[in-house]
Amino acid sequence: MSKIPVMELFGPTIQGEGMVIGRKTMFVRTAGCDYACVWCDSAFTWNGTEKHRVRMMEPEEVLDEMVALGGNRFNHVTITGGNPALIADPMARFIDLCHQRGYRVGLETQGSRMQEWFLQIDDLTISPKPPSSRMETDWAVLDRIVRRLHDDGVNLSLKVVVFGDEDVEYAKTVFARYPYVSQKFVQPGNELVTEAKDISHHLLARLAWLFQVAIDTPEFNTVRVLPQLHAMVWSNERER
Amino acid sequence: MSKIPVMELFGPTIQGEGMVIGRKTMFVRTAGCDYACVWCDSAFTWNGTEKHRVRMMEPEEVLDEMVALGGNRFNHVTITGGNPALIADPMARFIDLCHQRGYRVGLETQGSRMQEWFLQIDDLTISPKPPSSRMETDWAVLDRIVRRLHDDGVNLSLKVVVFGDEDVEYAKTVFARYPYVSQKFVQPGNELVTEAKDISHHLLARLAWLFQVAIDTPEFNTVRVLPQLHAMVWSNERER
Repeated sequence: MSKIPVMELFGPTIQGEGMVIGRKTMFVRTAGCDYACVWCDSAFTWNGTEKHRVRMMEPEEVLDEMVALGGNRFNHVTITGGNPALIADPMARFIDLCHQRGYRVGLETQGSRMQEWFLQIDDLTISPKPPSSRMETDWAVLDRIVRRLHDDGVNLSLKVVVFGDEDVEYAKTVFARYPYVSQKFVQPGNELVTEAKDISHHLLARLAWLFQVAIDTPEFNTVRVLPQLHAMVWSNERER
Repeated sequence: MSKIPVMELFGPTIQGEGMVIGRKTMFVRTAGCDYACVWCDSAFTWNGTEKHRVRMMEPEEVLDEMVALGGNRFNHVTITGGNPALIADPMARFIDLCHQRGYRVGLETQGSRMQEWFLQIDDLTISPKPPSSRMETDWAVLDRIVRRLHDDGVNLSLKVVVFGDEDVEYAKTVFARYPYVSQKFVQPGNELVTEAKDISHHLLARLAWLFQVAIDTPEFNTVRVLPQLHAMVWSNERER
């Protein structure tokens, strides 16, 4: 495959979560995922409902469209999915093109598989999925990926989406397993991903809950609790 | 003066804004300020209304009370005010004590004056005040402080609170003046600091406005737009 399966390409917008929260970025959302989290907020990337919208694009085409959209109003690009780690060479090429233009490149992926181009990423978030997702973490695989990225000096963060107490325990397990990763985040899950109306009140209540969990939990002393700002500001609006 | 004028000492809570947004921290809020911003959200530190609540405390006393409150549930301390930069030796001593305990120490100050202990701060935010505050920036002083902190390798950020278009222009000026400072933030101002009720809807509308300003502004390509999460979650509740 020499092309990238692009589900969405949009921006500039504001990164609403995680290690670069608040920073202006373009989003490239790839189609396809090896997971099927029950609460996935981008299930359209893998559940077939929007298969007709997927575009197979050359890395150069992705870059050109991005520049056409964003002009000089961005210098950061976020690759997300789906799971972008399913894509090999064309993504490596795309990242090279971005770097040639002086853009920083961020990646969000669950840590179920690795690509060599991970080592070229400027802001890399590994987001292992907790029990509420109904997915199983392959710890041996995750161990290898996190260790490799850390040893290579990649700017790496771990982020766990948390819906309830069982997920809190899972987050503790993840953070304790990789004590050498200094950037750690928890994020309240969005239970209303199909709701079209304003969900900010609900999301703020979930954030208040997770704030209190963190306050009470010594294991979260260095963990940062952040919401999805985009969902609070723009609800579940697509391509925002 | 060998004591610290403490207005509030509380936590653990979640840092709601700026460079360590989302991180659990204790707050030490000092009394006294050389500024009097018209929209100050902590005017009680300098306008005399709560003078009777100020406690003159030895650095060791501040540490002891903090540990009594937070136990093992924190390892980060935020010094804010008022303007903590008005305090010399006792603050240096307090920071030493915190470091001896293994705590990181953050500081928020406007950049109107400097103390040598700034160089010991782990997360330092300089927050110059825009025109809407009715304060005047002494650029020569700010230049010296920012340059000194940068040259000394302090983990430094610039944060500008923004109420309207004139403040946006001021933020551009600040960021352009110190291009070597990589961590730059804008934050929508809170126009309802005396409102006791839920102000989240208003704050989210202001955040949406500032998101759009950033999206449209090439000068904000590397600037992060962040709200005050604590005000969204807890409104103007004190000591949260």
